[in-house]
Amino acid sequence: MERVDIAIIGTGPGGLEAAITAINRNKKILLIGSRDFSDKVSKAHMIKNYLGLPDAAGDVLAKSFKNHIEGMGVEITEDKINAVYAMGKYFSLQGANETYEATTVILATGVVMAKPYPGENEFLGRGVSYCATCDAPLYKGKTVAVIAATKKEEAEADFLTEVCENVLYFPLYKETPSVCDKVTVINEKPLEIKGDMKARTLVTSEGEHNVDCIFVLRDAISPGQLVPGLATEGAHVKTDRQMTTNIPGCFVCGDLAGKPYQYIKAAGEGNVAALSAVDYIAELKKGEQQA
Amino acid sequence: MERVDIAIIGTGPGGLEAAITAINRNKKILLIGSRDFSDKVSKAHMIKNYLGLPDAAGDVLAKSFKNHIEGMGVEITEDKINAVYAMGKYFSLQGANETYEATTVILATGVVMAKPYPGENEFLGRGVSYCATCDAPLYKGKTVAVIAATKKEEAEADFLTEVCENVLYFPLYKETPSVCDKVTVINEKPLEIKGDMKARTLVTSEGEHNVDCIFVLRDAISPGQLVPGLATEGAHVKTDRQMTTNIPGCFVCGDLAGKPYQYIKAAGEGNVAALSAVDYIAELKKGEQQA
Repeated sequence: MERVDIAIIGTGPGGLEAAITAINRNKKILLIGSRDFSDKVSKAHMIKNYLGLPDAAGDVLAKSFKNHIEGMGVEITEDKINAVYAMGKYFSLQGANETYEATTVILATGVVMAKPYPGENEFLGRGVSYCATCDAPLYKGKTVAVIAATKKEEAEADFLTEVCENVLYFPLYKETPSVCDKVTVINEKPLEIKGDMKARTLVTSEGEHNVDCIFVLRDAISPGQLVPGLATEGAHVKTDRQMTTNIPGCFVCGDLAGKPYQYIKAAGEGNVAALSAVDYIAELKKGEQQA
Repeated sequence: MERVDIAIIGTGPGGLEAAITAINRNKKILLIGSRDFSDKVSKAHMIKNYLGLPDAAGDVLAKSFKNHIEGMGVEITEDKINAVYAMGKYFSLQGANETYEATTVILATGVVMAKPYPGENEFLGRGVSYCATCDAPLYKGKTVAVIAATKKEEAEADFLTEVCENVLYFPLYKETPSVCDKVTVINEKPLEIKGDMKARTLVTSEGEHNVDCIFVLRDAISPGQLVPGLATEGAHVKTDRQMTTNIPGCFVCGDLAGKPYQYIKAAGEGNVAALSAVDYIAELKKGEQQA
């Protein structure tokens, strides 16, 4: 796939504003996330302080945003990015479906509201995974657990049955899961991940399940896990007035950049992040011409 | 006049968004500026990147903003603030028409595009004034010059004729001035202000005019002159991600807070500035209760 100028991860107000600002500056972009936008927007009750769009219900605001980006020809690539690697002069983005390359990256994924399970960070990459598509082959013929934050993850569980012997499915949502027969749905609350050199046991409210891997599938993963080496402060990415991060070429906007969690603030930051990325690319080109 | 919680100076996107955010948080506000909003908004050709309002001409955007604030019952006080003084637990705002008091202040006046004339800063307060209403009495029976950036200043010149002997009027705009008979319109380009202990001469493209005072009337005055002691960086006010300044209780947003000069960025910052002011007031009250 062709390398783009700016990859934007996340389709909340920050990511969408970054996209239209970048397009206005004639940049080739990749906007990755959900086509239904962030649930935080479309499920919001009523937003009273997005200047120019008074008393907008979340879905109305989402529709205004959709009209805007579609009118500018911005397309959303439906994928979930599991890791972003700084490769020197570009970034490699590992999606569940594909790998992408971009000169700059804007992180607009929002904040991860869920706390990691005890043991989750410790065993990540050693029996804990965030990506079924990526890591399924490692667990051929084995028993795996899937902790699913949303209904969207059901397809992942179904996919895992094609490779794994047993798939234990722990839904965190209220709707009744509609998964294939081979998936074992277990309505217990996951509490902790235990193991030795690697994760071996999922502890729940009702007992313990011995498994070879635990797939923790949430909407977003924490920024430090998404971008190795990224400087963070709690749930937020360290940034400044230009929305830069400690990694050159990597910018941030929206809730992930800190409080307050507000739509108009996120959009404003998306604008700044995009223009900072534009400046960064211009500097990079200047440097290459001089070299 | 009753002291308000938050005085917002400026009616561009930053000031307007600060106003609606503060109202949403049940604060008593004073929004001071032009009811026609900032010229920079209403005279803009086409804004393509204000997320949710695609391809908006400046006047269309201004109308959306107007509908929003009117729907929330926000009123604009038409006045020009010439100085803001930090009085300890509140601020005193010196308007051309009135004096106001506020617990916190949000500066949203935009950037002053015009450079000061040589001698202007040097003689400010000593024969150079930014406020005809304030300083007219000092020049009773004298000769004064008025440098007027916009047609709005014609009323100031007319008013000065009631007090001063001679009023020389230097319009910087193209329209033919419609001032009263007593005002002498001089179509020369002001270049420099000269004097000794005080300003005495306005040097123009055509010659020199000896006067007792030079009123320099622009839409905005520089932030360091507006708020004595305010830390600035060039044309901007020094700030951080929370839109604070070096003066506790004084916040900033929009173009005045730095580049990029963009509507959505200004609005986002107005939101953050208002919420920071809300937090500051809460802390202040907590401190008073404990004292």
